[in-house]
Amino acid sequence: MTRPAAPAPTAEDLARRQREISVSEFFLKNRHLLGFDSPRRALLTAVKEAVDNALDACEEAGILPEIAVEIVQTAADRFEVTVTDNGPGIVRAQIPKIFAKLLYGSKFHRLRMSRGQQGIGISAAAMYGQLTTGRPARILSRTARNRPAHEIEVAMDTRANKPVILKEAECDWRPTFPAAPAAEGAAPAAPTKADRGTAVTIAMEAAYVRGRLSVDEYLRQCAIANPHLRLHARVALLPKKGDAEAAAAGGDAEAGESEGVGAAAGAWRCWPRAVEELPAPPVEIRPHPHGVELGLLIQMLKNTRARTLRSALTQDFSRVSDRAALDICARAGVDPKASPARIAHRESEALFQALQTAKLMRPPTDCLSPIGEERLLAGLRKEVAADFYAAVTREPAVYRGHPFQIEAGLAYARPGAEEDVAADEPVRLLRFANRVPLLYAAGACAIARAATGVNWKAYGLAQPKGALPLGPAVILVHIASVWVPFTSESKDAIAHYPEIVREMTFALQECGRRLAVFLNRRRREADAERKRSHIEKYIPHLAGGLRDILDLSEREEENLRRRLTALLERSRAAG
Amino acid sequence: MTRPAAPAPTAEDLARRQREISVSEFFLKNRHLLGFDSPRRALLTAVKEAVDNALDACEEAGILPEIAVEIVQTAADRFEVTVTDNGPGIVRAQIPKIFAKLLYGSKFHRLRMSRGQQGIGISAAAMYGQLTTGRPARILSRTARNRPAHEIEVAMDTRANKPVILKEAECDWRPTFPAAPAAEGAAPAAPTKADRGTAVTIAMEAAYVRGRLSVDEYLRQCAIANPHLRLHARVALLPKKGDAEAAAAGGDAEAGESEGVGAAAGAWRCWPRAVEELPAPPVEIRPHPHGVELGLLIQMLKNTRARTLRSALTQDFSRVSDRAALDICARAGVDPKASPARIAHRESEALFQALQTAKLMRPPTDCLSPIGEERLLAGLRKEVAADFYAAVTREPAVYRGHPFQIEAGLAYARPGAEEDVAADEPVRLLRFANRVPLLYAAGACAIARAATGVNWKAYGLAQPKGALPLGPAVILVHIASVWVPFTSESKDAIAHYPEIVREMTFALQECGRRLAVFLNRRRREADAERKRSHIEKYIPHLAGGLRDILDLSEREEENLRRRLTALLERSRAAG
Repeated sequence: MTRPAAPAPTAEDLARRQREISVSEFFLKNRHLLGFDSPRRALLTAVKEAVDNALDACEEAGILPEIAVEIVQTAADRFEVTVTDNGPGIVRAQIPKIFAKLLYGSKFHRLRMSRGQQGIGISAAAMYGQLTTGRPARILSRTARNRPAHEIEVAMDTRANKPVILKEAECDWRPTFPAAPAAEGAAPAAPTKADRGTAVTIAMEAAYVRGRLSVDEYLRQCAIANPHLRLHARVALLPKKGDAEAAAAGGDAEAGESEGVGAAAGAWRCWPRAVEELPAPPVEIRPHPHGVELGLLIQMLKNTRARTLRSALTQDFSRVSDRAALDICARAGVDPKASPARIAHRESEALFQALQTAKLMRPPTDCLSPIGEERLLAGLRKEVAADFYAAVTREPAVYRGHPFQIEAGLAYARPGAEEDVAADEPVRLLRFANRVPLLYAAGACAIARAATGVNWKAYGLAQPKGALPLGPAVILVHIASVWVPFTSESKDAIAHYPEIVREMTFALQECGRRLAVFLNRRRREADAERKRSHIEKYIPHLAGGLRDILDLSEREEENLRRRLTALLERSRAAG
Repeated sequence: MTRPAAPAPTAEDLARRQREISVSEFFLKNRHLLGFDSPRRALLTAVKEAVDNALDACEEAGILPEIAVEIVQTAADRFEVTVTDNGPGIVRAQIPKIFAKLLYGSKFHRLRMSRGQQGIGISAAAMYGQLTTGRPARILSRTARNRPAHEIEVAMDTRANKPVILKEAECDWRPTFPAAPAAEGAAPAAPTKADRGTAVTIAMEAAYVRGRLSVDEYLRQCAIANPHLRLHARVALLPKKGDAEAAAAGGDAEAGESEGVGAAAGAWRCWPRAVEELPAPPVEIRPHPHGVELGLLIQMLKNTRARTLRSALTQDFSRVSDRAALDICARAGVDPKASPARIAHRESEALFQALQTAKLMRPPTDCLSPIGEERLLAGLRKEVAADFYAAVTREPAVYRGHPFQIEAGLAYARPGAEEDVAADEPVRLLRFANRVPLLYAAGACAIARAATGVNWKAYGLAQPKGALPLGPAVILVHIASVWVPFTSESKDAIAHYPEIVREMTFALQECGRRLAVFLNRRRREADAERKRSHIEKYIPHLAGGLRDILDLSEREEENLRRRLTALLERSRAAG
C-alpha cells in the first residue's frame, strides 16, 4: 500500500519535527487576524488600539481623558504614530510586557466592561511596526508629578513572545496638549500639560487614506461615543511630487510646530468635551452560573479558595445566595459541606445540571456603563444636522451568562440638508462596542444583521430586500458588555448570538416607531397645510357667492369671510 | 479633573492587575474563533480537524490513507467522535502535546503544502470536549507492527496550556476498518486491520444535523478532493421519543456492532478510492526574498547558521544564486563577507530594499501538490450526473512570496436531471483549500468573491447582479498553497488577496469559456435539428410539387425526394 519511491518518514522522524509555536510567531504569520493586513488598515488599527488603551486607563483611574493622536509620514509608505494621554501612567516594570508581549494584560481575567479585553492589541501594533520597519516601540510614561518619567524602547523577541529592552532612561516629562479651541466669546485657552500620562510611538509601514474606513472617521466616531473625551489629532504628510512648491508658497499657521522630518504638519484638530463627567465606573462581577460550562465549573471548583462546596457556590458565583446554594446541592444530591475539589472529580456533572436549572436572579448589571439616551442624542446632534433624533437604551440582557446592554440611535435629516446622508442611498450605520467605533467587516457584524432585519417600510423608509433602509438618516447601535463576542481578534464585528441580535432589533424597532410618529405627523401637517391653503383660496369666492345669493352687505360679507376663516382654523386645530 | 467619588486606583494598583494570558485561556473564551461556537458546528469542526490530521500524517509517511469516522450519540446533546487512521502512528512522548497543547505541531514552521498549518485544530477540539463534558481525549496509537500500542487519556491544563496525562497504558492494537463494498461482480472484501495508525476519541457537546453544513457533506466533499482516500463513516443516534419501538421492531444489519450505549448504530458507509496512487509529495521550500518583510529579514540574519551575508542569502532563501547574492550586496552597498548578525543591526534596510528590487526567479512550485484536472473531473463525475464537465489547473502563482495554485471545475447538468442542482437556483459552489472542503463562512471567502465577480452571462448563464450565476451547475474551486491565508483560526474562508482572487477568476473564466462552447454547440444543434425537421416536413410537398410541374414519374419523384434529403444531410454536416 505504501509508495515505493521516496524514503517514507517513520513516526519517529515525524516526531522530531514537532515544535512549540509561540503565540507571537502565530500572529506574526497571521497578522491579518489582528487587523494588520493592509497598510491602510494597519494605521487605523494601531491608532485604535492605542486610543482604546488610553481611554480604559484614564477611566479606570478616574481621570477625565485627554488624548492627542499624531501621525507623521516619514517616507512614502512609512509613518510614525504617537498617542499621548493624561492617564495614570504605567509603572516602569510593566511597560515592556504591556507593549511587547502578546496575551498580557489586566482585562482578560476580569468580568468588567472595558474597551480592551484580550491583551493583544497594542503589542500587536508594536509587533507589526517592528516587522515592517525593524524599529522598536518607544514609550514615555510618568505615574505622578513627583516621580521621574521613564523612556523605554522595547522590541519583541517573536520566537519567545518576550520583550527585549533596547534603551531605557529617566527623562523629563515633556508631553503637552494643544490648546482647545476657545468657546464662543471666551478667552482662548492655554496649552495644557498633564502631571502624568503615557505617550507611545510606533513606526510602521502604513498608508493614510481618507474616507469611511479612515483614522479620521474613527476619531470622529470615537468622540461621539465618548463625549467626556477631549481629543486632539494632527496628520503631517510628506509633500507629494509637485506639491512641494505649493506648500512652500502657502505656509501653515502651525508651521512652527513642524517635526523637522520634512512632513508638512497640519493644524491640530480638536474635539472638545460635550460633558465634564466620567461615565459611571463599571463594577467587576463574578461569573453567573447559567453562563458557566461544565469544564469551567470543574476548573473553578478545583481552584477555589473556599473550603466547602456551599461557600464556593456563594463566593465564586454571582446571584447564588446561601439558600440557593443549599437548594442546588440538594437537587444535585451532593453534600454542601463537601470539599469543592472532590466534587470537581466525582459529581461535577450532577452539580452542573442543578446549577443550569436553578432559578437565579439575572447577573448584576452595574458591570455595564452604557452611554445613555441623553448622551447618545447629544452625540448624534453633533454628528448630523437632522430634523428628528431618537435614542433608546434597552434594559440589560444576558448571553451565555454575560450581561450586555444595547443602545440605538437614529437621526433623520431633511433630504439634501446634510452632505453626509442622501435620500436615495442606504442610511449610514454606525457601530460601537464598549464605546469603540467599529469600521471594518460591517457585513459580518450582528449589528448589520439586526439593522437589515428590521422591517423599516413599516416605519416609513424605503428598504430593498435584505438590505439597509434608504433615506437621509444615520442609525447607531452600541453594545456594552463584560465580554463582547467579536468575530476575530481584530475586533471589527460582533458574532451573531441570537440574544444579542434580538435586543438590537428591539432597540432599532423602538427608534423606528418614533421615526414613524414623526414622519406621520409631518405628513399630516403637510396634508393639513395643503388642505388649508386649498380652502383659503376658496373662502373669498364662497363669501362672494353667498353675498350674491343672500344679497348681503359688504360688511356682512366681510363678517362671513372672517367667520369662515375662524371655522377653518378651529377644524384644523381639532384635526 | 478627577471624580471625587470612588478611590481612584493608581498606576501601582493597575500594575498589580496585569497578568499573562495563556493561549488556551484565550481560545477557550473565544472558542467561536476556532469553529466551536455552536453544537452543530463543533461536531463538524472536530471531525474535520481529526480527518485533516490523519490525511496529512498518512501522506507524509507515504501511506495510502484509510480513515474511519464514527459518531455515537450518548445523550441528547452529547456525542463521542472517534476518528481512526492507518497512518504512521504517533510516538508516545508526543501524544500529550499534540492533543492537549495549543500551538504545537510540525507544520507551522515549514513552507510546505499541508492541511494543518497552525498547530491548533485537534487540541482545540479536545479542549472543547473537555470544556463541555469534563472528559479527556482518548488516543490509541501504534507506530509499527512489532511495537506495543499505547492508550492515553489526556486533559489540558488550560491555565498553562499544558497537557495533563490522566491514564496511560500499553494495550492491544484493536482498530479495524469495515470491509469496503465489493466492486460489481467481484467477491466481497474482508474487513482490514492496519499494522499501525492512530485512533482519537473525543466526547463533546454537539448536535448532529444533516444538510449543507453537515459532517456528511464534509465527508462527501473530502472524498471528491482526495480520490486516493478510502473513507468509512457511521453515525449512531439515540432513538428519539417514540422512535424506540420502531427501531426495536425494524432491526439493523449492523445491530451486532452496536456500541451498547443505547444508540442505534447505522450501517457503515464507504467512499472507495478512485485512484490507488498518492498525490505527489510536496517538497519543503525556503522563503522567497520577495515575500520576506524587513522585520523577518532581520530575524533571519540574526538566527542564520551562515557565517557570511553572501552564504546566508544563498542558503536561507530560495532562488538566490551566488551571483544574485553578490549583486544584491553590491546594490545595497554592503560587504558580502560581513557577518549576517552585524548587517541585521546596521544595514538591514538597504539590504531589504535591494532584495525587494532584485530580479529573481519565482519561488519553486514543487512545494505544491494540486489535485490535477483529470482527478478533478473524476471527482466531479462522482458528484454530479451532468452533461458537461470542465476542469482547469492554473500554473502556480505567488502572493507575498508564497507560491499558490488555483484549480477550478464545473459540472453542468441537464435541468432537472440532478436533484442536487436546479435550473433557476444559484449554482452550488464547492470550496477547497489544500484539499480540505470549506463549508462555513462562504460569504467571507475569496472564492465566493471570484465566483460572483465573473460575468457568467457572457458564458450563457443567468446571473443576478453581484451574485452567483443561476443554473443546474456545480462550481468547484481549490487553492493549494504552502500558506493558505485563512480569515480566521477556524479556517473556513480565504482572505481576499488580489493575486489569489485574480487567479481564481482566470480559472473560472476558462471553465466558463468551455461551458459557453458546449452551450453554444448544444444550441446550434437544437437549432439545426429544428430546421431540419422543418425542412423534412416540406420535402414530400416539394417533391410532389416538382413532380406536377416537371411531370415526373413516381420513380423520379422518389429519386428526387432521396436526393433532397441527402442534400439536407450534407448541408447539416457542413454547418
